[in-house]
Amino acid sequence: MKTITGGVCAAKGFSAAGVHCGIRKNTQKNDLSLIYSDTPCTAAAVYTTNLVKGAPLTVTKEHLLDGHARAVIVNSGNANTCNADGIDIARQMASLAADALGIDSTDVVVASTGVIGQPLDIAPIRDGIPLLCDRLSRQGAHEAALGIMTTDTVSKEVAVEFTLGDAVCRIGGCAKGSGMIHPNMATMLVFLTTDVAISAEMLHKALSTDITNTFNMLSIDGDTSTNDMVTLLASGAAENPCITEEGEYFDTFMRALNTVNIALCRMIAGDGEGATKLLECSVSGAKDETIAKAVAKSVICSSLLKAAMFGADANWGRVLCAIGYAGVPLDVSKIDVSFKSPAGEIAVCHSGAGVDFSEQRAKEILLEDEIEILVKLNDGDASASAWGCDLTYDYVKINGDYRT
Amino acid sequence: MKTITGGVCAAKGFSAAGVHCGIRKNTQKNDLSLIYSDTPCTAAAVYTTNLVKGAPLTVTKEHLLDGHARAVIVNSGNANTCNADGIDIARQMASLAADALGIDSTDVVVASTGVIGQPLDIAPIRDGIPLLCDRLSRQGAHEAALGIMTTDTVSKEVAVEFTLGDAVCRIGGCAKGSGMIHPNMATMLVFLTTDVAISAEMLHKALSTDITNTFNMLSIDGDTSTNDMVTLLASGAAENPCITEEGEYFDTFMRALNTVNIALCRMIAGDGEGATKLLECSVSGAKDETIAKAVAKSVICSSLLKAAMFGADANWGRVLCAIGYAGVPLDVSKIDVSFKSPAGEIAVCHSGAGVDFSEQRAKEILLEDEIEILVKLNDGDASASAWGCDLTYDYVKINGDYRT
Repeated sequence: MKTITGGVCAAKGFSAAGVHCGIRKNTQKNDLSLIYSDTPCTAAAVYTTNLVKGAPLTVTKEHLLDGHARAVIVNSGNANTCNADGIDIARQMASLAADALGIDSTDVVVASTGVIGQPLDIAPIRDGIPLLCDRLSRQGAHEAALGIMTTDTVSKEVAVEFTLGDAVCRIGGCAKGSGMIHPNMATMLVFLTTDVAISAEMLHKALSTDITNTFNMLSIDGDTSTNDMVTLLASGAAENPCITEEGEYFDTFMRALNTVNIALCRMIAGDGEGATKLLECSVSGAKDETIAKAVAKSVICSSLLKAAMFGADANWGRVLCAIGYAGVPLDVSKIDVSFKSPAGEIAVCHSGAGVDFSEQRAKEILLEDEIEILVKLNDGDASASAWGCDLTYDYVKINGDYRT
Repeated sequence: MKTITGGVCAAKGFSAAGVHCGIRKNTQKNDLSLIYSDTPCTAAAVYTTNLVKGAPLTVTKEHLLDGHARAVIVNSGNANTCNADGIDIARQMASLAADALGIDSTDVVVASTGVIGQPLDIAPIRDGIPLLCDRLSRQGAHEAALGIMTTDTVSKEVAVEFTLGDAVCRIGGCAKGSGMIHPNMATMLVFLTTDVAISAEMLHKALSTDITNTFNMLSIDGDTSTNDMVTLLASGAAENPCITEEGEYFDTFMRALNTVNIALCRMIAGDGEGATKLLECSVSGAKDETIAKAVAKSVICSSLLKAAMFGADANWGRVLCAIGYAGVPLDVSKIDVSFKSPAGEIAVCHSGAGVDFSEQRAKEILLEDEIEILVKLNDGDASASAWGCDLTYDYVKINGDYRT
C-alpha cells in the first residue's frame, strides 16, 4: 500500500470542485463543494449520535436507504440545524445539484457545517451550483477540501493505492474539523471515495467497523456535533472482482480504509481548534479492548491534561487521574506511563507511582508538535489509540465569539 | 432559616485554625488546617469515584467506619496521591493531630489537596501541628478555610441557623475548588459541621442524598479528582431531640444542609479556575429527574458553551447541541431556551428553533457575572439545576504549568 496524491479524486471516476458562493462573508473562502462520480456508486455513511441532528443528515439518510449515491453537495458557514425550514432547504440543495448534474436527487448526499440555528438562504447555493458544475474536474479535490473548512487552518486530504488481485485500487478522502468533535459515531465531515467494486452491504460493514477504531477515538473538545457524518462512495471503476463477502480482499480493503481514516484522524486532531500539538494516547496491556478504548479516550479528553500538554508540563498525575475516572475496572498499581515524541521517550510513572525523571528532558520531549502518551496497563493483551490536541488560549478565543 | 457568620465554627462546640507550615513555598499562604469538636461527633462522608484515590481517603474511610469523628486535619500544596508511602504519611498526619489533641487517631479525618505524585514530607506537618493546636479557636474558621485553598482566589465559607423544636441549630462549612471538578460523588474538599444531634446513620443518609442535587451537579472542567471528599460532623451541642429517623426534624435538617451546600456549590463554580462567570443551568419540564439532571450537567460541561459564555456570545445552538448529546431521550422540538442574569432575561430558542432576538440586549445580559441558562423541556414536571463556570484564557494559563 502506498500513499498517493489526489485526495477525494484519487479514485478512478471521481471529480470535485469548490467555490465561494456567498454563504460566508469572506469572499476568499470557499463555502460550497461538490464531489461527483461518473458512474453510480454503492454508498455507506455513519452519522452523529446527537439527538439534535442537522437537517442535511435527515435528507442524506433518506437518500442512502437504497445503498447508492453519486454526488455529495456540502456547504460551510451554516449548519442548517435547528431551523424550521431546514429539511426543505436540504432537499432543495440536493435537487439543485441533481438537476445540474442530470442525476436523481436521491443519489445526492447533502451536508452542511457552520453556525447552528440561523436560517440557510438557498439563493447563493442556487446561484453557485452552475459554476460548481463547470469547475468539476479530477484536479478539483483541493478546492473541494477548502470548501468544507470552518475553523480549520489547513485542508485535510489523503489517498492510498493498493491492489486487489490484479486490480490497482484507490481510497481517498477529505475531512473538516476542528471544534465540536468528540468520540461518538461520526463526529466531523469526512467524504471518502474509492474505485473498489464492493457491495453496499460490505461497504457499510467496512465503514461502520472501522470508525470504532478511528473517528470514534478522536476528541477535540468533548462536544459531539449535530451535523457530522462520514460518507464513503465506491465507484467500482478499479474493476476488481466485486467484494460481496468477508475474505482476503475485504481485509485488504479494510486495511486501506483504516490507513486513510487514521491519517485523517491525525490531521483533524493536530488541527483542532487552537491546537499547537497533536496528542495520541496509546494504551496497551489492557484486559480487553473496551477497557483499552475507555482509558485512551479518557486521557485524550481530560481538559487538565490537555492544558498541561500545551504548557509542555510533564504532569503525569493528570494522566493517572483521567485513567482513574475512565469508568472501567483496572488495577492502578500496575500502570506505567511515559511520554514520547520525535525528541525521545521518558518514563514518568511506574506501577502507579512516580519515578525520578529529568524535568528538563521531559520538557524537551513535550515541546515537540506530536506527543504520544504511552499507557501500559500490564493486565492483558488488548490495545487502543485515541487522538486529540492540547487546550490553548486560542481555543478559548475562537469559541468565545464564534458567531461574529 | 437565616444565614449567619462563623463558617465551619458557626455550630456550637467547633473550633478551627489554619497555619503556614512549609508544604508550600509561599509563606503567605496557609497550607495546614485543623477543625476540632469539643465533644465526640457522629460523622458522615462521601468520596470521589475516581479509581485513583488519594491515600488520605483510604485512611479517612477506615476512621469513619464507626460513624464517629472529632477532628479534621487537612493540608494543601500536595495531594499525597500516587506515592508509595502515601498511606503511611496519611496515618502519621492523623496520629500527630490526635496526639496533640489528646484524642484517638481513628477519630481524625485526614485530607490532602494539591499536586499528584510528589512525595509528601511529614516534617513540616509534624512541626506545624503544635502551633495549629495553639491557635484553635471559634474565630479560626477563616484561617482554616484559607489553609485548604489551592488555585482558589477566595475562601468559601457559609453557615445557616434554624430551629428544631425549641433548639436553635446551625450548619456551617468551608470548601475548596477550583479545578479537577466534575459531577461525581464528592468532587472537591468540603468540611461541614453542625451542632444538631443526629445519629450516624441519618447523618449519612442526609449527606449522601443531598450531594446528588448539589456537589454532584457541579462541574468546572470535567475532571473528577482523585482526592476530594465531603465530610459532615455533628456535635449534638444544640441539644435538640436526637434525629434517629425520617420526619419533620430530618426534613428541616435536610433543607438547612441543602441551603449550605448550594451556597458552597455556587461559590466553587463562581471561583472555578480562571472563571469570570458563574453559570447555572436550570432545567424544568423534564419527564423525570434523571433526564433533568443529565441535561443540566451536559449543558454546564460543554467546553464550547463555556467558551461562548466567556465571550458573552448568545450562541444558543451550543445549548441545543449539548442537550442533544446528553444521552437521555427527549423531544428536541419541544425545547425552549433563554438566558437570564441580573440584567434581565431573553428568549433565544422556542420549540427547538431560533427566535428573533436583539443581539445587543443578549450581550448586556451575558456580560453579567452570574448567568442562568433556562431550559424548558415541556415534557413533564421534573426539574434540576447544575452549576459551572466559563472557560477562559486563565484556565489554560493556570493549567498549562500548574506544577511550577
